[in-house]
Amino acid sequence: MAQQHLDPTDPTAEPVKGDALARYLRSQATEFLRALRLHRETGGTAGGAGGSAEAALALRRSARRISGSLHTYRPLLDSAWSEEIRPELAWLSGTLALEHACEARLDRLLLALHRLSGATPLPTQSTPATAPGAAGPAVPPPTGERGNLTVGAAKAGALLERQLTLARTRAHSTALQALGSSRFHAVADKLAVLASDVPLTPAAVGTDLRPLTDAARERLTDAVAALPLVTAGHPYNAEALVHGLSPDPAPHAQDAPWHQVRLLLRLYRYAREVPTPDGDDSPLHLCVPAAGRALNRHRDASEAAAAAAQAARTPRIAPATAYALGVLHADQRHEVEAARFAFQQAWQKQTVGTS
Amino acid sequence: MAQQHLDPTDPTAEPVKGDALARYLRSQATEFLRALRLHRETGGTAGGAGGSAEAALALRRSARRISGSLHTYRPLLDSAWSEEIRPELAWLSGTLALEHACEARLDRLLLALHRLSGATPLPTQSTPATAPGAAGPAVPPPTGERGNLTVGAAKAGALLERQLTLARTRAHSTALQALGSSRFHAVADKLAVLASDVPLTPAAVGTDLRPLTDAARERLTDAVAALPLVTAGHPYNAEALVHGLSPDPAPHAQDAPWHQVRLLLRLYRYAREVPTPDGDDSPLHLCVPAAGRALNRHRDASEAAAAAAQAARTPRIAPATAYALGVLHADQRHEVEAARFAFQQAWQKQTVGTS
Repeated sequence: MAQQHLDPTDPTAEPVKGDALARYLRSQATEFLRALRLHRETGGTAGGAGGSAEAALALRRSARRISGSLHTYRPLLDSAWSEEIRPELAWLSGTLALEHACEARLDRLLLALHRLSGATPLPTQSTPATAPGAAGPAVPPPTGERGNLTVGAAKAGALLERQLTLARTRAHSTALQALGSSRFHAVADKLAVLASDVPLTPAAVGTDLRPLTDAARERLTDAVAALPLVTAGHPYNAEALVHGLSPDPAPHAQDAPWHQVRLLLRLYRYAREVPTPDGDDSPLHLCVPAAGRALNRHRDASEAAAAAAQAARTPRIAPATAYALGVLHADQRHEVEAARFAFQQAWQKQTVGTS
Repeated sequence: MAQQHLDPTDPTAEPVKGDALARYLRSQATEFLRALRLHRETGGTAGGAGGSAEAALALRRSARRISGSLHTYRPLLDSAWSEEIRPELAWLSGTLALEHACEARLDRLLLALHRLSGATPLPTQSTPATAPGAAGPAVPPPTGERGNLTVGAAKAGALLERQLTLARTRAHSTALQALGSSRFHAVADKLAVLASDVPLTPAAVGTDLRPLTDAARERLTDAVAALPLVTAGHPYNAEALVHGLSPDPAPHAQDAPWHQVRLLLRLYRYAREVPTPDGDDSPLHLCVPAAGRALNRHRDASEAAAAAAQAARTPRIAPATAYALGVLHADQRHEVEAARFAFQQAWQKQTVGTS
């Protein structure tokens, strides 16, 4: 990441406090501009082609990192500028994320339907090895290929495909509109300035970043401490599916604290990307990759379960379709529970490591 | 059990080899006759009243123990007699078990529906403490009480109640017919003889029971060794729900080896009830109670999941009902997986203890 932009042969390049933050923000703004150029070159209107999707991902990556740094290192940055650009970055990365989310959700649900149907394994296209407990291979079934699914599973798959493809198409249009809007151009202009000129507060240069990185870590550890980790550490605690048939339209309030921890973990990860002279010596960062994967899986399974439940509310579906969607919903809620268990295990290791 | 029938003050009562088996069989036959008397006194026709149900349970208990001993200690018993009575005992205990199984299955499914609906906890009527991971309290909801279930869950509950109550009523009639049949009277007559006269082979008295108990244990350990225990020991391995939507009408062939181990574990437990002079010094018996509970739960959840799937095939049900049954089916298949995990943990302890 940002470390690569520090020339190790340059004796003046030692990252000194607030200046390290400026370097990091400049490098992320540069990444953003590079992604924007890529996006324009690959023709953003071509409808989610490879290069365009990659460009959108890179735009989101740097937008999230800049936004995260503005949050974590708020006292070191000009507050008027910071408060103006942060909501714009959130709008942008949120808008750009939607299309990919719809696509990933559909892949996840179709894969789960295949697994639940005991369908013959799909031809592997460089399938990454999956850990035990992972929900099947990561390669989505080719569109239209339904192997030997039952009628119910096939109909449920077709319904989800219709609904999520529609959502994805809408998200794609919205993203394209956003990228062509004057609102977006204003953000891009601001980031073009940031690539050379970071609005640090006068006191920032010479200020140690460490207390702010520590604070980000503490917000994370406090939020984790409030999670029901004892329950999550008992396999098959059957917590995630409680309220699975609740009349409550938003039954999964229990997921919110985990989503919150996911965001705090990401902020801490970004904060650690800013090179500081004395570094962050907490062993916590060792568990960050595994914990982050578990929380991404938690979020994905939670949203997939909600999509299955939503699809089941479609009027006039066949009982077999509804049954398959019920099985699918419960399956994804168990994935939620499995992800919490995986998070607990990853976090546990770190705690064992420190004590 | 049988030990109580050995008078500790009688110097000739030391259980000597084949004779211990005779004492055990006599005591079980006596138990059977006592249960039969209780059944007649409480009026077996009264339709599953407390005393009658208790009597049926006691009849099954002793019938299973006698049948199990005839199997384990086959070489020590008159083979013509043994081969004649064993199928009759199996018929009897199978017939008597059905009514209770339907009742327990309905209770389990209605409890699960309540849990899945996040319904307000039912008034506890001396609820036994449940282990973490157990599927809720063991007290079934009062009939007709559906708290704040959703329409789908309530309809699914009503459908299951209708179907399983019908099955239970049929099972009750069949059991009553069986208990009044000449076939049953023939069994009862044979067991009345057994209560005083056990048809041991001439060589049996003086034969050590130990090798036959050991053989029962080995049949158990061999069957356990063939189970996929490594997978079962990985929490959230998602194995039990594979084929959850399979077009295969008997998708849960994967359950059969576990059911088989359940039967072998029971045979071993019964074999250990026969007091032998030198006893069974294998540490395996220490895990038998926990392992047995896990396998009972496995069987119950497997059958409950099948009942939910079966109910979903009822013609003309509402999609919301089918959806709830799908969630319920998946929930019970996860209970199957949880039970396998619990068995693996219990068995593991025993293995750690021996090695």
